[in-house]
Amino acid sequence: MLDRSVFERLVGLDAADPLQDRRHLFHLPQGITYLDGNSLGCLPHSARRRADQAVAKEWGEGLIRSWLGAQWLTLPGRVGDRIGRLIGAAVGQIVATDSTSITLYKVLNAALDLQPKRLTILTDQDNFPTDLYILDSVAQQRNCRVRRVRQDDVAAEIDDTVAVVALTHVDYKSAAIYDMPGITAKAHAVGALTIWDLAHTAGAIPCDVDGCQVDFAVGCGYKYLNGGPGAPAFLYVAKRHQHAARQPLHGWFGHRAPFDFSPSYDPAVGIARFLSGTPSVVALSALDGALDVFEGVELATLREKSRRMVSEFLALFDAHLVSRGFVLASERDPKRRGSHISFSHPQGYRIMRALADRGIIGDFRAPDVLRFGFAPLYNRFADVGTLIEATLEVMEAGTWQREEYGVRQAVT
Amino acid sequence: MLDRSVFERLVGLDAADPLQDRRHLFHLPQGITYLDGNSLGCLPHSARRRADQAVAKEWGEGLIRSWLGAQWLTLPGRVGDRIGRLIGAAVGQIVATDSTSITLYKVLNAALDLQPKRLTILTDQDNFPTDLYILDSVAQQRNCRVRRVRQDDVAAEIDDTVAVVALTHVDYKSAAIYDMPGITAKAHAVGALTIWDLAHTAGAIPCDVDGCQVDFAVGCGYKYLNGGPGAPAFLYVAKRHQHAARQPLHGWFGHRAPFDFSPSYDPAVGIARFLSGTPSVVALSALDGALDVFEGVELATLREKSRRMVSEFLALFDAHLVSRGFVLASERDPKRRGSHISFSHPQGYRIMRALADRGIIGDFRAPDVLRFGFAPLYNRFADVGTLIEATLEVMEAGTWQREEYGVRQAVT
Repeated sequence: MLDRSVFERLVGLDAADPLQDRRHLFHLPQGITYLDGNSLGCLPHSARRRADQAVAKEWGEGLIRSWLGAQWLTLPGRVGDRIGRLIGAAVGQIVATDSTSITLYKVLNAALDLQPKRLTILTDQDNFPTDLYILDSVAQQRNCRVRRVRQDDVAAEIDDTVAVVALTHVDYKSAAIYDMPGITAKAHAVGALTIWDLAHTAGAIPCDVDGCQVDFAVGCGYKYLNGGPGAPAFLYVAKRHQHAARQPLHGWFGHRAPFDFSPSYDPAVGIARFLSGTPSVVALSALDGALDVFEGVELATLREKSRRMVSEFLALFDAHLVSRGFVLASERDPKRRGSHISFSHPQGYRIMRALADRGIIGDFRAPDVLRFGFAPLYNRFADVGTLIEATLEVMEAGTWQREEYGVRQAVT
Repeated sequence: MLDRSVFERLVGLDAADPLQDRRHLFHLPQGITYLDGNSLGCLPHSARRRADQAVAKEWGEGLIRSWLGAQWLTLPGRVGDRIGRLIGAAVGQIVATDSTSITLYKVLNAALDLQPKRLTILTDQDNFPTDLYILDSVAQQRNCRVRRVRQDDVAAEIDDTVAVVALTHVDYKSAAIYDMPGITAKAHAVGALTIWDLAHTAGAIPCDVDGCQVDFAVGCGYKYLNGGPGAPAFLYVAKRHQHAARQPLHGWFGHRAPFDFSPSYDPAVGIARFLSGTPSVVALSALDGALDVFEGVELATLREKSRRMVSEFLALFDAHLVSRGFVLASERDPKRRGSHISFSHPQGYRIMRALADRGIIGDFRAPDVLRFGFAPLYNRFADVGTLIEATLEVMEAGTWQREEYGVRQAVT
């Protein structure tokens, strides 16, 4: 078991945490230590209120009049601009809409259209699967090719045959962070464009898409942005590309004048041309409400707490879990790691099931990886201790060996 | 003004209406006669409850565990199957997901893949704009061509050069209904496939997609299905096509085993391959709750009420509005008309504004069309009288001439 002094120190860190009051903005189930905000963020009270307002007042009372009266028409851009603050984007460059897969499809087609003489999409062979699927699908449709390389080789592989470098900024398994400024500059130096997937970045790791001159980006609304299960994704198109950029999903909400009902498509001026069909107002409203929890938060404070939580975890991991057969699967360098950690164990699946029964929620990634996220707005330093202690208990009591834990369930 | 006996008769029809109790399942704003359910359906109490349950319990308490525990994983198909009952589709052929524009993009690509030797997409030149935009965009990407013809010429234009006939079953302006069995049979006779957009059909006009051997269909969740603003759309792929059919938006939720995180895309067996990214659970839950209002309703009863409401409207329109310069823009034949009506007047925009100020909500379609929908679950026969009487009042008192009504606002 962990020494009592360990918990005292962690509780002391919580007492000094400038973000400690933010925790009360969330609904946190009793008896649960939730360390999976990198997969699905906790429910902000403001998200529930805002979603119900959209349903009961804006829809129920306002009905069709709310497209103007409640400003539904501009909701994708207004939510997008709020996300922009978290990733370094000035207003007018982001819309919240669709899913990450579909937003990637849109910006990848847009980027390739801008590169008519190049046919190669460069990516990380360990990129998140849905990203790889979309890249392959688009490449097949357009007779392009996808070059998948190892993470360490990406920078070296950027040459003047590359049309687009498409990467996930923070690796979904290891949490390793790509050098966004360096990779983007290298791509531009040889005439390539960049698409960054910020799924594990936005809301936890500050970045500066405008400052890095990123071309396109996409990201997820339901992880650290806490927008709810399947929340709208977001996409960023740098202002300088918006005039020339086109996307192939020509829906009426991307039209210059949707309510003219023109028989021919004429893309909207600006980022709105990246919309397609009617956006889900209820889902966007939940995400809009969720973003309230970031109001007044300094991104540097957020990042510092995330970094510190992972550091505390690593110290305890080295001291207690390595000797029990656990192997770290994450980046150690604090500058190059995100806000979650992964480690493996041959009995990883059973251990995760046993932890879940003790109220510790993380996620399992086949074949043997346990992954835990530290969400700086609601996780406490004490949660790090709880995770380590519960893991030790599961190992020492041997509860992971229970027969029921051998039966595989689908997990997310 | 309308004679008192007119209202007495309409109120009598309401008293005899077998669907009269359904009205109480909806939140209906006080002082409003809402005749725009064909654009955005009213809020069912069950939709609000179900959405809040998804937010507060399933997300808030269950968190990531709800993918299994609350069966989020199967929600798109379960909601799809419930819609299936309303359009004559057996289970396992529909998913609720994305927007109508995006679902049309998917099924159109799937249909064209099945027709490698044909390059023509046949459609109605007055099809809903977003449908036309998607058809054009896909045609451009695939080097196909779109043949736009007049509604009356569609049947005659179906020949063996046509790959796909893509039509909206109920016209969004005139409410004219296409002969789904006849057109589908004619298409099949020459080896063409069909895609039906059921946006103004599902929830108001019964149809029989299985019985007609329709190949693909899409539809909208926020009109007569009352799923809320921007609710998920739905798509139907006939069982016989599901094995061969592919769609290009390869997201992880369309993968055979999403949580294996395989680096290559392997489409799911069955309709699930038409999913892409993570679906919006909150938006799907609102739609799921909304569908409760159809439980126990006979579709023939629904259709009969819709037909009768339009008939009552037409009789009053002919008796009172034609002489005031209004011109019907809708189909008269009860077998060939949907659940909304359109009529024009040179001062249509001003008249609609004046009606709105009297609490009568419909929608305006440029340049001069007023459109009103009759939703058989919550509209009353008395609403027909209210619409006619309010229009007469606006014309007789000349309130439409007010200066403020000349100022154009965006309308939906």
